[in-house]
Amino acid sequence: MPFSFELQAKSSETDARAGLIQTARGQVQTPAFMPVGTAATVKGMTTDEVQDLGSNLIVCNTYHLMLRPGEGLVQDLGGLHPFMHWSGLILTDSGGYQAFSLAQTRKLEPGGVRFRSHIDGTEYFLTPQRSMEIQCALNSDIVMVLDECTPYPVTAAEARQSMELSLNWEQVSLQHFHELNQNSNKGLFCIVQGSVYSDLRLECYQKLREWDEAKDGQGFAGFAMGGLAIGEPQELTREVVATVTPQLPADKPRYLMGMGYPEDLVEGVAAGSDMFDCVLPTRNGRNGQLFTSRGELNIRNARYARDERPIDPDCPCTTCRNYSRAYLRHLFQAKEILAARLGTYHNLAYYLRLMESLREAIIQDRFNAFKKDFYEQRSQGID
Amino acid sequence: MPFSFELQAKSSETDARAGLIQTARGQVQTPAFMPVGTAATVKGMTTDEVQDLGSNLIVCNTYHLMLRPGEGLVQDLGGLHPFMHWSGLILTDSGGYQAFSLAQTRKLEPGGVRFRSHIDGTEYFLTPQRSMEIQCALNSDIVMVLDECTPYPVTAAEARQSMELSLNWEQVSLQHFHELNQNSNKGLFCIVQGSVYSDLRLECYQKLREWDEAKDGQGFAGFAMGGLAIGEPQELTREVVATVTPQLPADKPRYLMGMGYPEDLVEGVAAGSDMFDCVLPTRNGRNGQLFTSRGELNIRNARYARDERPIDPDCPCTTCRNYSRAYLRHLFQAKEILAARLGTYHNLAYYLRLMESLREAIIQDRFNAFKKDFYEQRSQGID
Repeated sequence: MPFSFELQAKSSETDARAGLIQTARGQVQTPAFMPVGTAATVKGMTTDEVQDLGSNLIVCNTYHLMLRPGEGLVQDLGGLHPFMHWSGLILTDSGGYQAFSLAQTRKLEPGGVRFRSHIDGTEYFLTPQRSMEIQCALNSDIVMVLDECTPYPVTAAEARQSMELSLNWEQVSLQHFHELNQNSNKGLFCIVQGSVYSDLRLECYQKLREWDEAKDGQGFAGFAMGGLAIGEPQELTREVVATVTPQLPADKPRYLMGMGYPEDLVEGVAAGSDMFDCVLPTRNGRNGQLFTSRGELNIRNARYARDERPIDPDCPCTTCRNYSRAYLRHLFQAKEILAARLGTYHNLAYYLRLMESLREAIIQDRFNAFKKDFYEQRSQGID
Repeated sequence: MPFSFELQAKSSETDARAGLIQTARGQVQTPAFMPVGTAATVKGMTTDEVQDLGSNLIVCNTYHLMLRPGEGLVQDLGGLHPFMHWSGLILTDSGGYQAFSLAQTRKLEPGGVRFRSHIDGTEYFLTPQRSMEIQCALNSDIVMVLDECTPYPVTAAEARQSMELSLNWEQVSLQHFHELNQNSNKGLFCIVQGSVYSDLRLECYQKLREWDEAKDGQGFAGFAMGGLAIGEPQELTREVVATVTPQLPADKPRYLMGMGYPEDLVEGVAAGSDMFDCVLPTRNGRNGQLFTSRGELNIRNARYARDERPIDPDCPCTTCRNYSRAYLRHLFQAKEILAARLGTYHNLAYYLRLMESLREAIIQDRFNAFKKDFYEQRSQGID
């Protein structure tokens, strides 16, 4: 079964949609939040736990995996899925973003990114072709084109230049992906760039859509919005998302990359985005910032030292069923491994439950009521 | 139901025994290995996992808990069991050993140990009375007397002096424990000291036994061997254990403190020990040294980089059922939290399974055959 997307419901009040991604490997209900499993592990969690929490699609990072253990090793061992014991779907990013943010002495060239590994200094040259080869060696289900994440702030002229570089790379990615994958179950997603300039983004999108249609079913399986939430004011992010997302093809999944806070997910869904990823629930879970329907709670705070309540009395997750705030605070103070485990587990449980509720609200066509309730609760604060 | 111990089977070939500890909180089959949950957590594991692996008795460290979060807080929250979500039994040590090995500027005084916290420098004075108070505030099921762990090497004269100090503290501990606990379900264990001098140890034991019998049921619930495996040659340890252990009361559990490697457990059981604790399986599990029936395996070794086999093909644990050596090595190389989790889980599974097999061999009176087989397998090495 090739990669497919079925639109299942549409909100009559907003652009929010519910859908279903299907591949030979399984199904993913959208809107979906994808837990981040950087180095082939969602930090601190077993894959069984991630699946039990309701996720069937995670993100892995090409940059990390190409450096260690190397895509060749993963390929020889059957690909990422058996390697990390994950039977769900995997989306890999292109590697470009982290080559810029993490690597030593990186250099943008017209053909790709030259950089040195932050682990051992080895030089790499990441081109669109290489990114496709690596992601296919990893055997991910959803492959991302190589693009340049336009930095912020940026002038319109610089943003155009960056967007055009991305388009070049995306064209090469598209060509090479299909050369590598005849009759494949994988899907290739393109990425709309253009920074905070909606007109630039729409121009970028038009070009991508042209290529997509010319390929007659051998084009892009989905459309992503990249280069957002990287420092620009939140209103600008929201405006760009709300302006551009509804213009993307209705019959393909839309992926809002790298976002975000629960509010970002709700607004993204309202604008018609279907897929999300972010390190927030996992990273903050490890650091003791715990998400709840009534706002965030920093468990290291002294006020929780003797608090016998769970993180969130309304949360059905194992962390909340078994452990008190007082105990969790103790674990975080003592820098215990279990602290990171239980915090991550709770945060992912919250994020995944939020996505389920959003989907339900869309299917029952009561999105605005859900959103109002969501904001009311979130603004209450947790006592 | 007060603390009780029932002897269930005795090897006809060795001093090995199988027994049952019972308290109002539950049962523990012996011989038993007790996972170490230093700061009210077996590092990296949930209590549900520890129990699923077959353990119903863990050790927590008084020194760590008195410093953080403090026994008063734990007491106010109902004691260690609800605090850490553990429904099995808990043994706490006296705090003395770690006051000497971890604290800053510690000083031995006739009445106790004066030391400064390694966390924040606060001064504490740990006396036998305080140790009893703290352990009872934590509400552990098995309380250890305060003793001095005689350093090694040591002359016979120094060892006697240290042993006599321990006896003084143990007498005060016994007195104070029963003042604090009228009709309690807890059991107080004394500790036989005397370093590598078996005659000293037997003298120490005679004194403890006298006090125990004089108290007519209000004495010691069990007898421990302390101050071993702290640097002395292994043959000396084994000799002392084999000489002294069989002399300890047959109708009370015997606890061989701080040991050890799988071979130490087998020899300890052969000498008639019933209880064991050691950080080896958990600490080494976090560091990538994994125990198997055919010896240890250092998973960081480059030879495992592409090894698709589980740690131990014969091991039924979740780590071995789901994850390859190649993946585990990758997790350890990448310093992932999951590495520590999976390594700890596997090592505890091995230790607890070993204890079950030992118990079975005793009950079926085939201890020597088991032991022969155990050594043959362990010496093979794992390929």
